[in-house]
Parts: sequence; structure tokens; C-alpha cells
Amino acid sequence: MGTGTDTAAVIGLGSMGLGMASSLIRAGLAVTGCDIDDKAMHALTAAGGRACANPAEAVRDAMAVLTVVVNAAQTELVLFGSGGAAATMAPGGVILSSATMAPADARRLAQRAADAGLLYLDAPISGGSTRAGTGELTVMASGAPAAFDRAAPVLEAIAQTVYRLGDEAGIGASFKIVNQLLAGVHIAAACEAITLAHRLGLDIARVYEVISASAGNSWMFENRIPHVLAGDYTPRSAVDIFAKDLGIVADIGRDRKFPMPMAANALQLFLMTSAAGMGRDDDASVARMIASVTGLDLPGMKPGGTV
Amino acid sequence: MGTGTDTAAVIGLGSMGLGMASSLIRAGLAVTGCDIDDKAMHALTAAGGRACANPAEAVRDAMAVLTVVVNAAQTELVLFGSGGAAATMAPGGVILSSATMAPADARRLAQRAADAGLLYLDAPISGGSTRAGTGELTVMASGAPAAFDRAAPVLEAIAQTVYRLGDEAGIGASFKIVNQLLAGVHIAAACEAITLAHRLGLDIARVYEVISASAGNSWMFENRIPHVLAGDYTPRSAVDIFAKDLGIVADIGRDRKFPMPMAANALQLFLMTSAAGMGRDDDASVARMIASVTGLDLPGMKPGGTV
Repeated sequence: MGTGTDTAAVIGLGSMGLGMASSLIRAGLAVTGCDIDDKAMHALTAAGGRACANPAEAVRDAMAVLTVVVNAAQTELVLFGSGGAAATMAPGGVILSSATMAPADARRLAQRAADAGLLYLDAPISGGSTRAGTGELTVMASGAPAAFDRAAPVLEAIAQTVYRLGDEAGIGASFKIVNQLLAGVHIAAACEAITLAHRLGLDIARVYEVISASAGNSWMFENRIPHVLAGDYTPRSAVDIFAKDLGIVADIGRDRKFPMPMAANALQLFLMTSAAGMGRDDDASVARMIASVTGLDLPGMKPGGTV
Repeated sequence: MGTGTDTAAVIGLGSMGLGMASSLIRAGLAVTGCDIDDKAMHALTAAGGRACANPAEAVRDAMAVLTVVVNAAQTELVLFGSGGAAATMAPGGVILSSATMAPADARRLAQRAADAGLLYLDAPISGGSTRAGTGELTVMASGAPAAFDRAAPVLEAIAQTVYRLGDEAGIGASFKIVNQLLAGVHIAAACEAITLAHRLGLDIARVYEVISASAGNSWMFENRIPHVLAGDYTPRSAVDIFAKDLGIVADIGRDRKFPMPMAANALQLFLMTSAAGMGRDDDASVARMIASVTGLDLPGMKPGGTV
């Protein structure tokens, strides 16, 4: 088991991973971590963690490893690839996998973890980097009771709400997929609606006020439209995140022969926005894309509808 | 001005119109009304109102007339057609038009009202028949200050919230259109998502619990998915209402050359559901249509996915 039961390793130190690392450190755990970006490594050190060369080194004394990377392929790589965590982690350690992925991928990774003598929690997260840093994430988790037990101190440190959704990997992933389908559609719809409102000559700040108190409201409308009103597209969550997540939804639909026209349509709007050069900007940029196409000037846009 | 300033006429006595009539009666106003359906006329009488043969008769002593019909064409008919209200209503009376319609139609009707010496409030409503009956509707209104003044006792009786959105007809209609675009897309997305959840083998009651507390939530998801969970498609609001309202959105898009792919897609799902014979059922029936197509059994459906 190595030397400690109080060490957690965080693999992937973007804003979500760093936020989670900070929450773990604040909760009294020893935190190791690694990332391909040197700046992220320095940020971990500055926060009181220990930067390591690769996942295998980071998990040497860890009872838990959190994979905070973008998809199933990266998760597999940092766990089972060269220099991956599974090679050195002590048996009985728990993997918390947070990337949004297809349920079948979560089940496959859990099987590989079991083959390596490790516990696996299918534990997608929701809440954004601010709540990662304050330890107030929502976790949609499934896995064996032993995995939940072993992961308890980590979940306690990073999450405000832990939904325990079942005993098998794949269930957490499925819940997250359903959530992302809705969230993506709602962002696209919010951007379409606020741009229509502008086209109709309405005061869009007033539209925000009225709609967010009406039956047309959504969590995403309420959360994202202020970015449009402020003309501020600094990425809290980037366009390419939803292009990726709705891409996973689309893959599942093709695989299961399950048509999802709303999700498919939203995906196209995120892809159009990314194609127009805004893939790394805030996902409310879908509104800028529509405004640009239709020759409208939303706040913060250059006259003539350019972006 | 006839005999009273305390009489209001309600034209169109469906569940919304009857609810509004009840709220007006409870507030102490004398209420007249008419409908093409005899049962609705009896219901008005039972509630303490006076049933009249046509709008012209209903408004003879009224200071206000509420048109609670389905679209601009019907509104125009009951106001300016044969036996319409405008022929007999005393000058200075106010029309409160509640149907969802294109802003251009609202402006045109307001102009015809002005030509007839009447005031006009572009006053679409939101909230459903239950809130109509309790006097707790939301009204998205625009019109001249004199129209607001004259309509004040009526608005006070029927609404919890009155948004005063501008001095010209068309603005209220525009706000309502933006709301309906979002509401329609959100119902379609909620139905798509809950059916996917079922296809993925999830406990859909648990999905409802988790998603309604997560970033994927919308007002419509929270409000409509319980109908799916209960398998109860008694119409609180029918599929054909959104087929109509998203049709108006589509008309505006073509007229203004403003693409709205999310709304267009949702419209198709409502049309598919209506085509499958569920046009008069609750709008959450979009989930039944998707389940039927994909061979799934949601609660209340016959085995094999039939509806």
C-alpha cells in the first residue's frame, strides 16, 4: 500500500484538476499530480502539492488517483499507457475517473482496473472550476461499494453533492451523458433565443430578466446569457467542450440506433462556432456565431457582426 | 361608456379563459363571455358570469375585453369580424389580447383597434390554466399608458406578475415568442433526454431527481417529466399548442431571414407527435412518440412501444 492512505494523485491539472487538488490539500490530504503543461505543474507546487514526472510516479504512495482529463482515450492513456498509473499503484487503490465518456468506455476501463487489482469509480463531475476549487462539485458516481469506501475522503473533499447511482461503472457516465445532452441543447437554444430577441429589437437585458423568471428558463440560460449581455467570452467552459460531449452523445446514438435530433442539431451549432474560430472561447459564443452570420451586433462585437 | 366600468368580457372560454373569468369574478368584476362551445358557456354561468351570443353582445357594457383564443386570425375574427367586439364596444374600452402571435400581427390589430377608438394591450400570458384560475398568471404586456391604466383592474385580478415591456404593441408578442421558442425546445429536449435515459437502462425517476438539481435542468424539464414518470398524458398543455407556437416562430424566421435551427427541429418533433395521433394529448407526449419509434416502453405505454 505504499506509505500513506492519505495521499491522492491528480492527473491532469487544468482548471478543474487544479481546483480539485486545492480542495484536497485544504482537506488535509497529501496531493501529488502531473500534467503535460509545465505551468500547471508549477501551479500545483505553489498550491502545496508535489509535481511528478508522470502518473506512475504520482500514484506511488497514493490511495486514490483522480483522472481529470478530457475523454476516455486520455483516461486510458494516463491509467494504462506507458508511465501510466496502473503500473505502480498499490493494489486496492481507487481510481476516480471524471471525464465525460460513453458508458461502454467506463465499463471497459473499470474492467481493466479490476484486472490490475484496482478499484474504479465512474465519477463524472459537474459544477465548473470555481466549485472545484471550493470543494463544491456535484459527482454522479457509480461503482462497487468498496470503491466508494476507499474514495470517501476524496469525495468528501471535492464535492458538495455525491449521487451514488449504482454498483457498476457506466451508470455514472450515463447520467452525465443525459445531463450534457440537455445542457448542450439549452446553451444552443439560449444563444438562438437571445439573438432572435436582439433581431426583434428587444432590450436583451430585459429579456434576460423576464425569461429567467418564466417557463422558458433553463439553468444554462440563467448562467450563460450574462456572458452575452456583458460581451465577455472569456472561457468558463469552452465551445470545444460541448463539441466533444455532444459528439459522445452522437456516437452513443449511432451505436444504439437511437435518434437524438435535438442533440444532433446543437452539436452542429457548436461545430459551426468552433469552425468560425471560437472553439476555445466561452460556449456562449454560439450567440456570437449566430449574430455574425445574421449581421447583428451583440455587446462586445465589432460593428458589422464580425467576431 | 355603457353602464359600468366594472364589467369585463372574456371571449374564448377554454380552460385559460374560464380560469381568467373566475379570477375576475372573484375580484368583484361583472363578467360576460362567449364561446362556440355550449359546455363552456354553461361553465361560465355556473361560475357566476353571464353567457352571451357573440362578442358584440358580450362587450356592450364592458370596459375591457379579454381575447383568449388560439391565434391572430381568431383574435381578429372575434374583434373585427361579424358579431365582433369592436362593433359595439364603447370608445375608450380596452382590448387585452392574450394569444401568442407574430409581433407584426399584434401591431396590425392594435392599429385596427385605434381606428375603432379602442385601446389595445398586447398582453400574452404565461402560467397555465391552474394559475389562470388562481389569478396568478404572468403577463408580458406592451401598449400605450392609457391602455395599461384602463386595464389595471383586470391585470390586478388575473396576474401575479405584469411585465410592462414598452409603449407599443408587438413588444409583448416578441417577448412571448422568445419564451415559447425556449419552452418548446426545452420540452423536446427533455423528452429526448428522458427517453435516452430509459434506453441506457437508467432509473428514470432517479434521472429526474439528479438532473433537476443539475446544470441540465430547465423549467420545462422539471414541470413536464413528472407526466412521463406517471405515464399521465392528460393535456395540461397540448402538443398542438407548441406545434402552433413554434410554427409562428418558424414564420417569423422565414419572414426576417433569421435561421433558428433549434426551434425548427423542435417543431418537427411536435409535428411528428401530432401526426402520430397525440396532438390533443399533453405535450410531454413527445417522449411517447420517441419511445414508440424506438420500441421502448415508458410508464403507461402498452408493451411494444405503441401509444
